[in-house]
Amino acid sequence: MRVVYYTAMTLDGFLATEDHSLEWLFPHDIDQSGPGGLEPFIGSVGAIVMGANTYAWLQEHGEAEQPGGDPWPYDVPAWVLTHRDLAPFPGKDIRITAAGVEQVYADAAAAAGDRDLWVVGGGGIAAQFAAHGLLDEVQVAIAPVTIGAGTPLLPAHVELRLESAHRNRDFVVATYAVLGSDRPED
Amino acid sequence: MRVVYYTAMTLDGFLATEDHSLEWLFPHDIDQSGPGGLEPFIGSVGAIVMGANTYAWLQEHGEAEQPGGDPWPYDVPAWVLTHRDLAPFPGKDIRITAAGVEQVYADAAAAAGDRDLWVVGGGGIAAQFAAHGLLDEVQVAIAPVTIGAGTPLLPAHVELRLESAHRNRDFVVATYAVLGSDRPED
Repeated sequence: MRVVYYTAMTLDGFLATEDHSLEWLFPHDIDQSGPGGLEPFIGSVGAIVMGANTYAWLQEHGEAEQPGGDPWPYDVPAWVLTHRDLAPFPGKDIRITAAGVEQVYADAAAAAGDRDLWVVGGGGIAAQFAAHGLLDEVQVAIAPVTIGAGTPLLPAHVELRLESAHRNRDFVVATYAVLGSDRPED
Repeated sequence: MRVVYYTAMTLDGFLATEDHSLEWLFPHDIDQSGPGGLEPFIGSVGAIVMGANTYAWLQEHGEAEQPGGDPWPYDVPAWVLTHRDLAPFPGKDIRITAAGVEQVYADAAAAAGDRDLWVVGGGGIAAQFAAHGLLDEVQVAIAPVTIGAGTPLLPAHVELRLESAHRNRDFVVATYAVLGSDRPED
């Protein structure tokens, strides 16, 4: 069982614009069944964790808030780390929690069993996992665009080891093992 | 003749720490004769341009300012775009200029002839070239580390097209064609 931060980003290291837009991402093509694509990854995932902004983005673009919006995209138990009062998607296995990252890790890892725990984002959540020595792997799909400012991939000093790199259509996809972080624990 | 921004960066898109350190870069290994390495690149370069911070870094680490420091590393004519009063390396073909990017492009391109013009950095200089439609290619070598903050790769919205991606030892190296920038011209 591994904890994997799997995400797309711009070439200059941003997950989204400062106003949480992903418009820069959608024009670019990836084969989701190819290397670094969602399909080979998602099959190994047993639970997910995310922060408030990621969850809020899914809510705003989802059927919970707009007709014809996307359904909640995950089948596995989800933890949302936040001190905000966020509503769950109705009928989904989503735990909104203000617990610390170690407690959430323990609970989510138990739910994942021998499958992986996916850190969906954002970068601050991934950095907290890294600071606690709880992040095993970073998988990034790098879109062919720079945006100059936005929400950061991983706001911390984290040493990595490149495990693999491939081209997948418009994207560079790379997998890294996490060697260590010197960010102070939160 | 192409204008190529060729640089190394962290996975999170920084060229250097906020205090201009490259200590994060040096532990990582690249084959300079392999894909994305300096040797196949430098042979095609006929002139270079850089900004004040890049030049100051070379000065501070060079023989001009410290005994046993590195010699000026380039054989081709160099332009340094700055409004600061910087000293040239003695005996080298270096033009410190406050001219605009279009004038510098014209002069440097004439010197480069049918060879390429290398935009060494930093990101602000590359963004100015892109804003004027004068940047053809971005080549990055991505080190396996995040640092969370620093000087940015390319502080602008620039659309790119992935041309190639390879692994070179610790680095992911990728080449992009520049499609366009909507950053206002300086």
